[in-house]
Amino acid sequence: MIIGLSPRRAMTVFAALILAVLPSASHASGHEESAFVLNSFAFLIWGVLVMWMCAGFTMLEAGSVRTKNASVICLKNVGLYSIAGLAFYAVGYNLMYSGVDGGWIGTVDFGYRTTPDEIAMLGGDTEAAARVHANGYSTMSDWFFQMVFVATTASIVSGTLAERVKLWSFFLFIVVLTAVIYPVIGSWTWGGGWLNERGFQDFAGSTIVHSTGGWAALAGALVIGARAGKFRPDGTVRNTAPSNVPAVTLGVLILWMGWFGFNGGSQLAMSTGVDVVAISNILANTNLAAAAGVMAAIALSRPVLGRIDLLAGLNGAIGGLVAITAGPDIVSHDWAVIIGAVGGAVVVLGIKLMERLKIDDVVSAVPAHLFAGIWGTLAVCIAAGGDPLTQLIGIVSIGAFVFLASLLVWVIIDKVFGARVSETAEALGQDVVELGIEAYPEFVVMPDADD
Amino acid sequence: MIIGLSPRRAMTVFAALILAVLPSASHASGHEESAFVLNSFAFLIWGVLVMWMCAGFTMLEAGSVRTKNASVICLKNVGLYSIAGLAFYAVGYNLMYSGVDGGWIGTVDFGYRTTPDEIAMLGGDTEAAARVHANGYSTMSDWFFQMVFVATTASIVSGTLAERVKLWSFFLFIVVLTAVIYPVIGSWTWGGGWLNERGFQDFAGSTIVHSTGGWAALAGALVIGARAGKFRPDGTVRNTAPSNVPAVTLGVLILWMGWFGFNGGSQLAMSTGVDVVAISNILANTNLAAAAGVMAAIALSRPVLGRIDLLAGLNGAIGGLVAITAGPDIVSHDWAVIIGAVGGAVVVLGIKLMERLKIDDVVSAVPAHLFAGIWGTLAVCIAAGGDPLTQLIGIVSIGAFVFLASLLVWVIIDKVFGARVSETAEALGQDVVELGIEAYPEFVVMPDADD
Amino acid sequence: MIIGLSPRRAMTVFAALILAVLPSASHASGHEESAFVLNSFAFLIWGVLVMWMCAGFTMLEAGSVRTKNASVICLKNVGLYSIAGLAFYAVGYNLMYSGVDGGWIGTVDFGYRTTPDEIAMLGGDTEAAARVHANGYSTMSDWFFQMVFVATTASIVSGTLAERVKLWSFFLFIVVLTAVIYPVIGSWTWGGGWLNERGFQDFAGSTIVHSTGGWAALAGALVIGARAGKFRPDGTVRNTAPSNVPAVTLGVLILWMGWFGFNGGSQLAMSTGVDVVAISNILANTNLAAAAGVMAAIALSRPVLGRIDLLAGLNGAIGGLVAITAGPDIVSHDWAVIIGAVGGAVVVLGIKLMERLKIDDVVSAVPAHLFAGIWGTLAVCIAAGGDPLTQLIGIVSIGAFVFLASLLVWVIIDKVFGARVSETAEALGQDVVELGIEAYPEFVVMPDADD
Repeated sequence: MIIGLSPRRAMTVFAALILAVLPSASHASGHEESAFVLNSFAFLIWGVLVMWMCAGFTMLEAGSVRTKNASVICLKNVGLYSIAGLAFYAVGYNLMYSGVDGGWIGTVDFGYRTTPDEIAMLGGDTEAAARVHANGYSTMSDWFFQMVFVATTASIVSGTLAERVKLWSFFLFIVVLTAVIYPVIGSWTWGGGWLNERGFQDFAGSTIVHSTGGWAALAGALVIGARAGKFRPDGTVRNTAPSNVPAVTLGVLILWMGWFGFNGGSQLAMSTGVDVVAISNILANTNLAAAAGVMAAIALSRPVLGRIDLLAGLNGAIGGLVAITAGPDIVSHDWAVIIGAVGGAVVVLGIKLMERLKIDDVVSAVPAHLFAGIWGTLAVCIAAGGDPLTQLIGIVSIGAFVFLASLLVWVIIDKVFGARVSETAEALGQDVVELGIEAYPEFVVMPDADD
Repeated sequence: MIIGLSPRRAMTVFAALILAVLPSASHASGHEESAFVLNSFAFLIWGVLVMWMCAGFTMLEAGSVRTKNASVICLKNVGLYSIAGLAFYAVGYNLMYSGVDGGWIGTVDFGYRTTPDEIAMLGGDTEAAARVHANGYSTMSDWFFQMVFVATTASIVSGTLAERVKLWSFFLFIVVLTAVIYPVIGSWTWGGGWLNERGFQDFAGSTIVHSTGGWAALAGALVIGARAGKFRPDGTVRNTAPSNVPAVTLGVLILWMGWFGFNGGSQLAMSTGVDVVAISNILANTNLAAAAGVMAAIALSRPVLGRIDLLAGLNGAIGGLVAITAGPDIVSHDWAVIIGAVGGAVVVLGIKLMERLKIDDVVSAVPAHLFAGIWGTLAVCIAAGGDPLTQLIGIVSIGAFVFLASLLVWVIIDKVFGARVSETAEALGQDVVELGIEAYPEFVVMPDADD
Repeated sequence: MIIGLSPRRAMTVFAALILAVLPSASHASGHEESAFVLNSFAFLIWGVLVMWMCAGFTMLEAGSVRTKNASVICLKNVGLYSIAGLAFYAVGYNLMYSGVDGGWIGTVDFGYRTTPDEIAMLGGDTEAAARVHANGYSTMSDWFFQMVFVATTASIVSGTLAERVKLWSFFLFIVVLTAVIYPVIGSWTWGGGWLNERGFQDFAGSTIVHSTGGWAALAGALVIGARAGKFRPDGTVRNTAPSNVPAVTLGVLILWMGWFGFNGGSQLAMSTGVDVVAISNILANTNLAAAAGVMAAIALSRPVLGRIDLLAGLNGAIGGLVAITAGPDIVSHDWAVIIGAVGGAVVVLGIKLMERLKIDDVVSAVPAHLFAGIWGTLAVCIAAGGDPLTQLIGIVSIGAFVFLASLLVWVIIDKVFGARVSETAEALGQDVVELGIEAYPEFVVMPDADD
């Protein structure tokens, strides 16, 4: 045996081979770690984009209100984002995600935290690290991403109720909305509750986030009423133009940008080829729907509203974005264009409807988030298949719960603290009365003739 | 043989070894998948930054125009971004990238879509997945990144022609620019056409994007003419100051930020060490060039324009950014400083030249994008080697095609629909006449004395 | 032996096995390259977010000053970012990081560059590539991330000294601050100098960045003095309200967003499970601290400042962010809430203190960055253990050096060029006098009655 295998030599070769294979053995866990890194990072970077939407709502709303209420709306937005973050940390996350198991609510438990395994891992424990990696993503990256979603829901409310809801009453409602109401319906769906088990499809939250915000805003608008002078005794509607159009436009473009994180991040993973193909389709569809929403709303604004309307166009973008949010991963690109265009049209028609119903919505958040959200949630099963009945059950049950719970909370707040500022405060503006800080103190602004 | 290898045992050991090796065998494809993930993600995240440049142009332009035209310029920007996205989806991408093969145009084909392999992959087909991974990046991530580039090209035009071009005529031009003109010259270069085969170097588009936008804007400015009163009969030039300097500044900082995506993403990959070293150099060079552009423009503004000029400084940043865009991956850092500084200087001198030529460019987009773009495209071969003649051929052929095609389109639009608003509309402002929405309705603004 | 192992066959099988194992052998270096890619990318993407903070400071400051100084503050911010980038490239980086070795300063050397190995690697040299990968991240990605930190330090100074420091004197100070002062104290700590060896803990720079900026601003404020009329002879303080509250709010939200990059990127790596768990905790803690800072400052503004104060709330966010910056990776989430809340409170009390001391700080940068920075640096050892004495030594030594060096530079600038604009310039506004460009030229603004 010239090139024989003496037992000894064979063993040596085997040992060498086994050693060579070892990195490969650790490769499985290396692969798991690498997936863990990419999935967690995805939650964080897309989450940062969703956090940025807070600035979008702030600019949109600060530009939409009259100058005399612009400071207060800024404070409301910064405050609601802060409250949402603290409330979702304190109780919201657990209510939404812990131990839901097909039910309708999670556990009541204070704080949501880095796990002991993660702490051990940071301290160098490799066994704990293996368990952590197997989880697929880090605990707080998931928390961060879910937290910015709650904040988005809350942002929708501030716009509708601008210029008349009391600062502290608004903050109180936001505490309940972000600590309880949203987490409850969130547990039904993304938390693994009963609606999820029924097969309700709402990828990134046309209903779960946007309609929820819209219902909460609508309840508030009904309790608090329209701004003084908005609906005149003679039946005409007073035009309350945005005070700063470039700010509104900037706000919408920020939202558009942030929506890539909102929808893209909702893939909830980014470590496989399947994930990034899905995310790529999601971003393309999100952009196509928004673009179609803009053009449809501009086109429709002429016959419906009597002019080419910038604000309709901007709200059309939001309507298109909200509408595609329920299924950006599964509808075709052509369908994305159609869903977005109809979303934009829904907003324009919805603005008209709200005026007919004499419900005052300062930024048209109800048409853009609630109406377009309903359309989007139904559109998924039209465009990509699925059970329309289940979609309807989801829309109605979430709508009923959020609307009624919000109505109750608003009524209680109204009885106990008063939800609405005084007539004087409304006339003088909330900035001067509630804050003593005007938004543009050096600029000469015109007296608000109609008040 | 105490530690002998009985055939049976040998087989067992071999089998175990082979199994151990299996993950390693799948490692090759695992590596391919991981590269696929990172490359696709890079297109998306850098693309989101480029999309954000749309907000930069919007703020820059809304702050640069007089208040009476600020709403319309916002609508033009949101509209052009929407149109660009839809047009590039409908026909532009295929014209630019499909089947160019050294020629001068791609195929006419409706829609650009997720491939059947990608759809199969999403459905769980692993063989399709392997083919998809081998492609290096996902179809729609590439589309997304290329789409935001078209939008950038279109954004350049709106600034130059602000305050006088009709809304719908502008939109019509943008349709042609983004569906045909840009895709054609894009096919010559990035699409693999004749200029690419000649060796034309333009990494991220000093010429392909920025000069293209500049030529299209210049053609429009010549057809439409200057704003009323800009060039007075006595030969003096009316100073039309930006109405909102903080908005202009914000716009430039947004563009600066977005440019990291514009240039960094143009590496078109991010999965290897070579890629990230290149991207790191690109981001450093991009920042150095912009910074040098600012300082050079501020310094030069004193002798050339008679004062330290904020707007020159801001346009200097853009000049520096445009100039470095042709070769941020291959020039040294010291050269990046020089290229950027000269780019800033070119803008200041270009502003002066445009005034001499009596061409009205509201935001100085032609100096910043066209003139600095030409400089940047030539600077690559000065700083990093390459054939100056090829660069010149690229600059001239792209310039000639874009300028002449744009001129033709503008003339046709002008004859058929009228490119310019009426004298009354110009005097009253496009906001009131075309939209009925003033940008700052509550603020008291001064009458535009010179009109 | 039906399934025997003839020596020949055994060798064949072995060879096949060895070949199969080969990718696994190259797997180690593949893993190193993959870590290199992720670490470098992390520096870049988080760095882009930190660059974005420049826009945050710009909006915050442009909205905080009176309209007559808003253009100049925009130019100062764009200029300081440019200067910081060029100065840190030219000499700052080497002073801070090259050859510090436990000492107190690095080397004086022009330029910081892509290494020869990286250039060879771009040219295809695989041995050079292996050495580059082993370094863990690319040279210029690290430079980019560190550069945006210098710029942040410089941004803090412009706000405090707004409305009275001469443009060119300010730029001159920024050259010294970013080329020398910050790099020196940076070398003591992150550069591996004496304070680092002593165990000083300051994760992302509560002291190193924020207090440094605060001390430099304080020195300038003392040399230059308060704005005319800020502190009246009768002892009362003139209220100089921000001229554009939505701009201030946008600025703070930009800073908040950018801070995720500031703190998250300071992990300096993103390739392992440990890294992303740490970064996830960092982002969660950063957000919790900011949110707590907002709510604490709003609550405290009522008793301390006499009203619910939007600006206190906004500065509370910054106070919370600055305070958490020293240890976002190691404190618990509950501690993050406490640290942030106290940070917000420190800002409100600090604003009151500055008024008592008659030191004029236009944007309250000294309370928000210096005072909250000191609190945060001490809070780390309270919340997560560590040596309080070492923390104090760090705070005092950095404070003493930065304050005294800055004082010296400001005094020299003041003697040689004059640090402060003329009384006329201050009364008319820097925009008209230094630039000839008003920030809002068409808007009617009220005469500044108190001047």
